[in-house]
Amino acid sequence: MEEILHKAKTVATKLVIEAGAIAKERFDQFTRLEEKDDYGDLITEVDTLAEQLILTELTNIFPDHQIHSEEAGDNGKQSDWLWQVDPLDGTNNFAIGLPVFSSSLTLLYKREPVLGAIYEPMVNRLFISSVNEGSFCNDVQLTMNKKATPEKSTIAWIQGHSIQNDEKAVKLRRYIDVNCKRMMRLWAPTLQWCMLSKGAIDAIILYNSEGDDLYSGILMVKEAGGIVVDFEGNDFTGMNDEPYLVACHPDHKEYFLEMVNEGLK
Amino acid sequence: MEEILHKAKTVATKLVIEAGAIAKERFDQFTRLEEKDDYGDLITEVDTLAEQLILTELTNIFPDHQIHSEEAGDNGKQSDWLWQVDPLDGTNNFAIGLPVFSSSLTLLYKREPVLGAIYEPMVNRLFISSVNEGSFCNDVQLTMNKKATPEKSTIAWIQGHSIQNDEKAVKLRRYIDVNCKRMMRLWAPTLQWCMLSKGAIDAIILYNSEGDDLYSGILMVKEAGGIVVDFEGNDFTGMNDEPYLVACHPDHKEYFLEMVNEGLK
Repeated sequence: MEEILHKAKTVATKLVIEAGAIAKERFDQFTRLEEKDDYGDLITEVDTLAEQLILTELTNIFPDHQIHSEEAGDNGKQSDWLWQVDPLDGTNNFAIGLPVFSSSLTLLYKREPVLGAIYEPMVNRLFISSVNEGSFCNDVQLTMNKKATPEKSTIAWIQGHSIQNDEKAVKLRRYIDVNCKRMMRLWAPTLQWCMLSKGAIDAIILYNSEGDDLYSGILMVKEAGGIVVDFEGNDFTGMNDEPYLVACHPDHKEYFLEMVNEGLK
Repeated sequence: MEEILHKAKTVATKLVIEAGAIAKERFDQFTRLEEKDDYGDLITEVDTLAEQLILTELTNIFPDHQIHSEEAGDNGKQSDWLWQVDPLDGTNNFAIGLPVFSSSLTLLYKREPVLGAIYEPMVNRLFISSVNEGSFCNDVQLTMNKKATPEKSTIAWIQGHSIQNDEKAVKLRRYIDVNCKRMMRLWAPTLQWCMLSKGAIDAIILYNSEGDDLYSGILMVKEAGGIVVDFEGNDFTGMNDEPYLVACHPDHKEYFLEMVNEGLK
């Protein structure tokens, strides 16, 4: 396992940087946009090119591993090792020329994330986390911030595409909006996990948003000393198709859980 | 006037690029943060350094012009020409390492904006607008986007610091949030005017947010073919200490005014 992880880290680092470069080259110069789905998301040629690049190399190097990718789906392999590929997280931002997007790769072993690699091409930031080895941004180890005044927090709100204006989700996000300094909705979930890991924001509240962009972020936060719990306060592990999560500094667990409970009342 | 404007454009271009460079150099490497005010904004050395640079040069080149700057205040000159200096718009983003901020300069003549220069250092985008001459991003002329389906719009919500959770503001932003595709709150108002001018977003709804970051944006949108009206639909001109504004493509004026009226009911 050690050996595979070591190799995987090298490969993942190379691939997210290369995938990110594809996006950076085309930033603010895209030529073709089409509606991705009913939610109005945008897909660009970058998604496709970056995904192809990643899938080709992963398949070459780890032919037995299961690989799941946002556009191409699942490769159908049975394996304890599962790669999740998100070639362009923050597609809508990319499409409108907002430099807030990333490429990410996650490796799970028996449904637990063991490696996350996230690259922000526009600012050349590489985030790497691996299980029991910590989280790093451009080789600087990350630690969570413990804000003295959590009532002045910046909280990232992340929700699934399908949620839209689900009544309870609207209620909760409205409550959060008026009970923190800044509620941040960047439409780039992976990066918000990175921002939390480096202490740039104070919490994430995630409402039923599953997908290939989730597990690298969870590992990043946990390895930076943060907690990730469900709305009942239980440690979140493994994979879940309908996650409801709070992520923050351990000392703020009760504060943000209370906020969620109040907001859902 | 022509001559002053021409000279002002050259000077403003140089200064916003230099001010932006000060920010870029220190991006994600700041060492000192202090609370700016009760609203929890952050001020960094960049604000001060960039402002000093701009004020020194402006005072040298246009010694008789009135100059108003966010931190230093007003130079007390009586003049038809008024410069507004915003060395770092998006301070909070800068402070937390989010590459969404700009430096901007506005020149007004008899209280009407005649020149706007806005520079985004992290992506090297220079926005210039001047009265009757159009708006440009890196020398490409900008035109507003007219979305076929305004109900799928991205709308930037901008509110003043002092508004916070003002009851009517909360009501309106909650209404907008559930009646568009994406409500964007970037905490970098100047850039949102640029995004609207280049067709990256579809509307701005601004609730009582005045300041040095407003007039370059208004000029940018108008010179790109957009409209800027108050909540009653009247063309917005001059300066106002408590502006309530809708900015969009002319053909969508009724659509967004209706949204505001419904939202305030």
